Amino acid sequence: MTDVDPPRLAAREAVARALAEDVLPLGDLTASLVPEDATALGAIAARVEGVVAGRLCALEAFALMDDRLDVDWRLPDGSDLEPGSVIAQVSGPLRSLLTAERTALNFLCHLSGIATLTRRYVEAVALAGGSTRVLDTRKTTPGLRALEKAAVRAGGGFNHRGNLSDAILVKDNHLGGLVIAEAVSAARAQWPGRMVEVECDRAEQVIEAVEAQAAAVLLDNMSPEEVRKCVALVRERTQPGATLVEVSGGVNLETAPAYARAGADLISVGALTHSAPSLDIGLDLIDIGGR
Amino acid sequence: MTDVDPPRLAAREAVARALAEDVLPLGDLTASLVPEDATALGAIAARVEGVVAGRLCALEAFALMDDRLDVDWRLPDGSDLEPGSVIAQVSGPLRSLLTAERTALNFLCHLSGIATLTRRYVEAVALAGGSTRVLDTRKTTPGLRALEKAAVRAGGGFNHRGNLSDAILVKDNHLGGLVIAEAVSAARAQWPGRMVEVECDRAEQVIEAVEAQAAAVLLDNMSPEEVRKCVALVRERTQPGATLVEVSGGVNLETAPAYARAGADLISVGALTHSAPSLDIGLDLIDIGGR
Amino acid sequence: MTDVDPPRLAAREAVARALAEDVLPLGDLTASLVPEDATALGAIAARVEGVVAGRLCALEAFALMDDRLDVDWRLPDGSDLEPGSVIAQVSGPLRSLLTAERTALNFLCHLSGIATLTRRYVEAVALAGGSTRVLDTRKTTPGLRALEKAAVRAGGGFNHRGNLSDAILVKDNHLGGLVIAEAVSAARAQWPGRMVEVECDRAEQVIEAVEAQAAAVLLDNMSPEEVRKCVALVRERTQPGATLVEVSGGVNLETAPAYARAGADLISVGALTHSAPSLDIGLDLIDIGGR
Amino acid sequence: MTDVDPPRLAAREAVARALAEDVLPLGDLTASLVPEDATALGAIAARVEGVVAGRLCALEAFALMDDRLDVDWRLPDGSDLEPGSVIAQVSGPLRSLLTAERTALNFLCHLSGIATLTRRYVEAVALAGGSTRVLDTRKTTPGLRALEKAAVRAGGGFNHRGNLSDAILVKDNHLGGLVIAEAVSAARAQWPGRMVEVECDRAEQVIEAVEAQAAAVLLDNMSPEEVRKCVALVRERTQPGATLVEVSGGVNLETAPAYARAGADLISVGALTHSAPSLDIGLDLIDIGGR
Amino acid sequence: MTDVDPPRLAAREAVARALAEDVLPLGDLTASLVPEDATALGAIAARVEGVVAGRLCALEAFALMDDRLDVDWRLPDGSDLEPGSVIAQVSGPLRSLLTAERTALNFLCHLSGIATLTRRYVEAVALAGGSTRVLDTRKTTPGLRALEKAAVRAGGGFNHRGNLSDAILVKDNHLGGLVIAEAVSAARAQWPGRMVEVECDRAEQVIEAVEAQAAAVLLDNMSPEEVRKCVALVRERTQPGATLVEVSGGVNLETAPAYARAGADLISVGALTHSAPSLDIGLDLIDIGGR
Amino acid sequence: MTDVDPPRLAAREAVARALAEDVLPLGDLTASLVPEDATALGAIAARVEGVVAGRLCALEAFALMDDRLDVDWRLPDGSDLEPGSVIAQVSGPLRSLLTAERTALNFLCHLSGIATLTRRYVEAVALAGGSTRVLDTRKTTPGLRALEKAAVRAGGGFNHRGNLSDAILVKDNHLGGLVIAEAVSAARAQWPGRMVEVECDRAEQVIEAVEAQAAAVLLDNMSPEEVRKCVALVRERTQPGATLVEVSGGVNLETAPAYARAGADLISVGALTHSAPSLDIGLDLIDIGGR
Repeated sequence: MTDVDPPRLAAREAVARALAEDVLPLGDLTASLVPEDATALGAIAARVEGVVAGRLCALEAFALMDDRLDVDWRLPDGSDLEPGSVIAQVSGPLRSLLTAERTALNFLCHLSGIATLTRRYVEAVALAGGSTRVLDTRKTTPGLRALEKAAVRAGGGFNHRGNLSDAILVKDNHLGGLVIAEAVSAARAQWPGRMVEVECDRAEQVIEAVEAQAAAVLLDNMSPEEVRKCVALVRERTQPGATLVEVSGGVNLETAPAYARAGADLISVGALTHSAPSLDIGLDLIDIGGR
Repeated sequence: MTDVDPPRLAAREAVARALAEDVLPLGDLTASLVPEDATALGAIAARVEGVVAGRLCALEAFALMDDRLDVDWRLPDGSDLEPGSVIAQVSGPLRSLLTAERTALNFLCHLSGIATLTRRYVEAVALAGGSTRVLDTRKTTPGLRALEKAAVRAGGGFNHRGNLSDAILVKDNHLGGLVIAEAVSAARAQWPGRMVEVECDRAEQVIEAVEAQAAAVLLDNMSPEEVRKCVALVRERTQPGATLVEVSGGVNLETAPAYARAGADLISVGALTHSAPSLDIGLDLIDIGGR
Repeated sequence: MTDVDPPRLAAREAVARALAEDVLPLGDLTASLVPEDATALGAIAARVEGVVAGRLCALEAFALMDDRLDVDWRLPDGSDLEPGSVIAQVSGPLRSLLTAERTALNFLCHLSGIATLTRRYVEAVALAGGSTRVLDTRKTTPGLRALEKAAVRAGGGFNHRGNLSDAILVKDNHLGGLVIAEAVSAARAQWPGRMVEVECDRAEQVIEAVEAQAAAVLLDNMSPEEVRKCVALVRERTQPGATLVEVSGGVNLETAPAYARAGADLISVGALTHSAPSLDIGLDLIDIGGR
Repeated sequence: MTDVDPPRLAAREAVARALAEDVLPLGDLTASLVPEDATALGAIAARVEGVVAGRLCALEAFALMDDRLDVDWRLPDGSDLEPGSVIAQVSGPLRSLLTAERTALNFLCHLSGIATLTRRYVEAVALAGGSTRVLDTRKTTPGLRALEKAAVRAGGGFNHRGNLSDAILVKDNHLGGLVIAEAVSAARAQWPGRMVEVECDRAEQVIEAVEAQAAAVLLDNMSPEEVRKCVALVRERTQPGATLVEVSGGVNLETAPAYARAGADLISVGALTHSAPSLDIGLDLIDIGGR
Repeated sequence: MTDVDPPRLAAREAVARALAEDVLPLGDLTASLVPEDATALGAIAARVEGVVAGRLCALEAFALMDDRLDVDWRLPDGSDLEPGSVIAQVSGPLRSLLTAERTALNFLCHLSGIATLTRRYVEAVALAGGSTRVLDTRKTTPGLRALEKAAVRAGGGFNHRGNLSDAILVKDNHLGGLVIAEAVSAARAQWPGRMVEVECDRAEQVIEAVEAQAAAVLLDNMSPEEVRKCVALVRERTQPGATLVEVSGGVNLETAPAYARAGADLISVGALTHSAPSLDIGLDLIDIGGR
Repeated sequence: MTDVDPPRLAAREAVARALAEDVLPLGDLTASLVPEDATALGAIAARVEGVVAGRLCALEAFALMDDRLDVDWRLPDGSDLEPGSVIAQVSGPLRSLLTAERTALNFLCHLSGIATLTRRYVEAVALAGGSTRVLDTRKTTPGLRALEKAAVRAGGGFNHRGNLSDAILVKDNHLGGLVIAEAVSAARAQWPGRMVEVECDRAEQVIEAVEAQAAAVLLDNMSPEEVRKCVALVRERTQPGATLVEVSGGVNLETAPAYARAGADLISVGALTHSAPSLDIGLDLIDIGGR
């Protein structure tokens, strides 16, 4: 497994579900027009520029459909794509190849779309010249979190919380009457060693969070200028890296460089997983035999 | 069930999977900061214009999280949203409400995004003044087909094939050496009564398909002008509605009216389900008690 | 995959469930009498005449039980069986062979029973000399639809609707106050391109359905003579194949030829899947070694 | 739960699977012709004589489809049916009622078919005037064992082994070189207290089995006269009930009384579960409102 | 499969669940520190004395994680372990090995703990010199029954009921107003041939149970002396083995020999599965390459 | 939900699996001796001292078995138990109550065993008078992690990592040639904001880890005296709480106070979840009616 692959069992389970959606109960009616013994060689190729992700899912889709399908994968997740880039070659029974095609491509196009959008954010942020990193959020497509978070990594992004169970992110609604110091302290008391991050709307809250030694502050819906001020407040009070500054809300490809220049350590972007358009990848039959 | 709801068990299964993704194994760490007996009233409201979809999923998410959560749903799927439109009110234990929030919203935002983009295509096509209908494709997000196809209906669109098992769509790769008449005939022989559609690249193929009494011809990647010619070929040879003309490929919100004006019965758009951006819907706490 | 095989994942899932039913929690108590290293060669053979179906399921059952079991399958689904016909040979560890035997045979006997009954109907109908085809219905055994519909194909029959989601079949209860033309038109409006079939009790309804260009009329519980009249009404009004005539209800092996002679295009028989007796297929040990 | 109900979770799981088979992905296309607010009252009624089974499954099917459907169940599993007997009344939204109808009936018809055939065997055996009981086997429909074995009980039959894990049944293939006494002893040694039954082809084996204190002997494919002799051998050597005599193979409704008169304690009949024809039960709409 | 292996599909399902628990959604964060191409050879070794069980589960864990992991299993389930005994060697990609390690060990340590405690009871009982056997109960860890009962066999113990569905065990609460003879008779009437065991608190009940030909009596919470008297009552009235005497309650490693000497045929010990401490087994990396 | 409850869907899924294990396929054979209309009131009561956990699971078990069972739960998870403490009262159909009893108790006894052992460690550590906290590990019973980690919280303990996906714990095997500073830095670079903990065998490593600003150091298998020295090294170099000191290995109830006195912030104990003996909790029928 590479760092940009999802856990294999996540791929396997999602593919089984997707293939069942597409072929049950009667199988591929149209494929019955194809002679049983016809074979083919096909190329999975990018139609546009982008970044590929979803290798494990596509491999599982072909394997689950028919173990006689042979796949030669050429570009690992995270590879750059040009129009025409051949990602993989698939050969074997034509019927099975045609039946599995859409399932394999639905994963590849969706996940490559996420990797590609992530890469664009990473590049936008890189323009600022700093070390700001791009993060995903929990705003993932239901049922595909493990796969989508891996696609973000493939695009050069990083993963925020996997879910509600692995880190503390204190928002306004959690505070009730508590001041930030109390909330951070309560969180640490209940969940020792876990990362505690605090969402801040105002400069005073940032100071409170830093003094409470929060691992990160989340600046939501601030302007780059406001972010810059908050970053300064943090830097004055902590060692480098002790409290990370995360920015979210109102970030898009145009504004991302400004936020990066403002000194944010992390920029989290829900759109990476909830609004990335599909990347156009297709399967071309190169050669058909046996019919 | 309404026509725009998915089968309830599709919603239930998808929600269980999504909620598990977000809360296992330890639950919502941050929610432990909230007093156990705190209650709240929240409003699910649109931040932007659009069309809502995903009601059943959101209801299931709150119910599965905590059956003490009470949901008053106000706008059924397919309703128009203005910024600020209140879609539903949720009341009950604050912890549970905060924990279920993201799962419920992930469904609502994703499916409303699809309904909204569908509506835009429907409106674009309506500009042409004809009776052209907007269809989805099999390019759905893996694992969510039933839900996404219902969201398309909520947006005023229509459903193409549910999957490979319910209709025949003959493409080039299926033909091998067969002429279209043979393929349609073979398909009818094998799958009596099923809809048979034929993908056509050229005018001659359209004529062949019509003569073979195909239920529909799929014109892929043609210009509106080419479509107009093919429509004429079809209309000359059939009773109204006997062979539908479907257009796909190269259709976007700008070009859709031209394709509609060209006389297409159906315009199918993969982007409805593979590239609709999430619709911005949020949950606002109106009132918090018991803490 | 052949046309008479079910989707492989349908077979896999059903077999896992069936094997779990038969061996959990303690395994096969009796097999513990057999020495661990005993091996055997067995033949799966027909005891009676019939048609075989269920190959994929039997293969999965042996493979899931023990991957050291080696199966040499000789007669693909749809093959004719005589008493004694050897369908497959299985060799490997005797314990595993005995443990998997019943699960494999339960699938084979059940599905071959369906294929065999289907074949009898196909033959009965063929006596009429026309092109009438035999169809299944949605009256399948719960949980086995994909497998049973494939077995019908193996027997030479054809598949009606896979489920409620893939075609429209308007029955009396759906009409309410609508006349048939309105119902067909509403169905077409809502589900463009889908096959619309109309159940008809009377000749006038048949005429209405034909005029509404229904893809098929379903004549339920009519006598062959009534069917003949309805067929004539249809033929007078349509091109060949434009509206199919389906007969159901009151059809059995004795009456089927009369219905076929009456000109029905399709005869659908619920009994194919809900009442086919099991076909007697057994496993004979030919040779036992290693003990 | 009654003795003739299956475990409820077996019903629930099977129904969820069956309903999914019938309505995914798009739901019931035809039901969309029915006004959303139409309601109905329907009666589930027998068309023929028989014995009902499957109550829990039918209840689950309606409940899972739509919790607004209200079911008044009148005849518990095991009740006698005459043509026209009303088994249950269902009221609520007409759309949901029509959509769930086939799933509910598929269970009811299949399981009532099993109960009915069982009842016929029970009655045939009762003609002999003794206390012979009718048993099922492991030849059940894959995935439905719990439900089918409950249907056998509803018909007045009894359950043989639930599966390979709950009793020992020594057949020829298990013996290898062992004599019966050794096999029984080995089985007892490995699985203390479990029922051990021995399949016997010849009188000497019966004697061996009785002397080994087998709980039962299985006489496979013997004539009634041979059975009578074996019963005598058993009765001479044991207290009543100490070793039961089970007969299987070659038993049908005609021969069953003779086997019972021959003194068999148990007659096991694979056909109860593998070949029972579906019982004809339908749903009649009595009243339709709200449209 | 050996007698001490669980059904393979029980192992497979449990392992998939456990591995998912440990690696979803993001995979093994720490493993990303390890170079992708690093490989290793590791030894699974006992740290303490005991008995090994769980082979199939450990094999599945490594295989499911990464099929490039190669496992050389040396000590089958039931083997004695000394501190340092090498149970298996695993080689392959270091990342995958480290990621799967804990899942594999959690099964091995838990199941070997059960096998080890069982062996201790077996040895304690053997001190008495008789033929008393040690049994498990239904007090197993939820979800792991098949695996834990196999581990008991690996330790030299035997399996009591697999579940509520495979034998009758009449306790006080089942009797209501019935006398034992009636209850046994009713159980036999309803479930022919099944083992019927009766829990007895007093000597009279033992006599009643024996006279009712119960297959076993369960003496709960009696002293060894009371057991001895009950055994005598049984032996006086039955042939050897006809009614087994089972002892449960108050049995521990100290008292077990006394109960065995008192003549009990079976001693059942809930602690085998509900309270066996984990056996200390670890994985040592012997050699690391490729980095 | 309270802080000591697991996510409800974890309880629900585990209970469905466990109940299926215990009642399929035939249900509770013995319960058929009980009249169908008998009802009962039962008390779930502790036989020994301890701490209760598992409420949600027991509630689900009774509810899933029969929704007519009414449960009055009296002692929430985390409550102290004395011998005789009534945890809950259950009333309803006697059959269902007896059938669900063991499943409910298996969860309660197992999880309360964990809570109780945890409490003992918490009390042992409290003797030291400091603020040391007791943690669990990933050495949980396969399939039950969410439930067991909640039981640890019920006992007053705290949760370490939920799984491999939510924090970084650098061990020797991960380091390869890296020095600690590089590893921590690489981990932070790849997984921003996540807790990074470093396992240390020697004092120099502790210093390296502190200088790398690890969130915690894990001192494995050190003596209390060694721990004391390491704690001092940490305290000299960091603000309070900036780097936590965790101790594991060689900790038991006797040694725990010494480790606490040595100044460890956290003591993690695998035995909490892998070796806690079951707590003796039973169900007593108080009153039986209707028979």
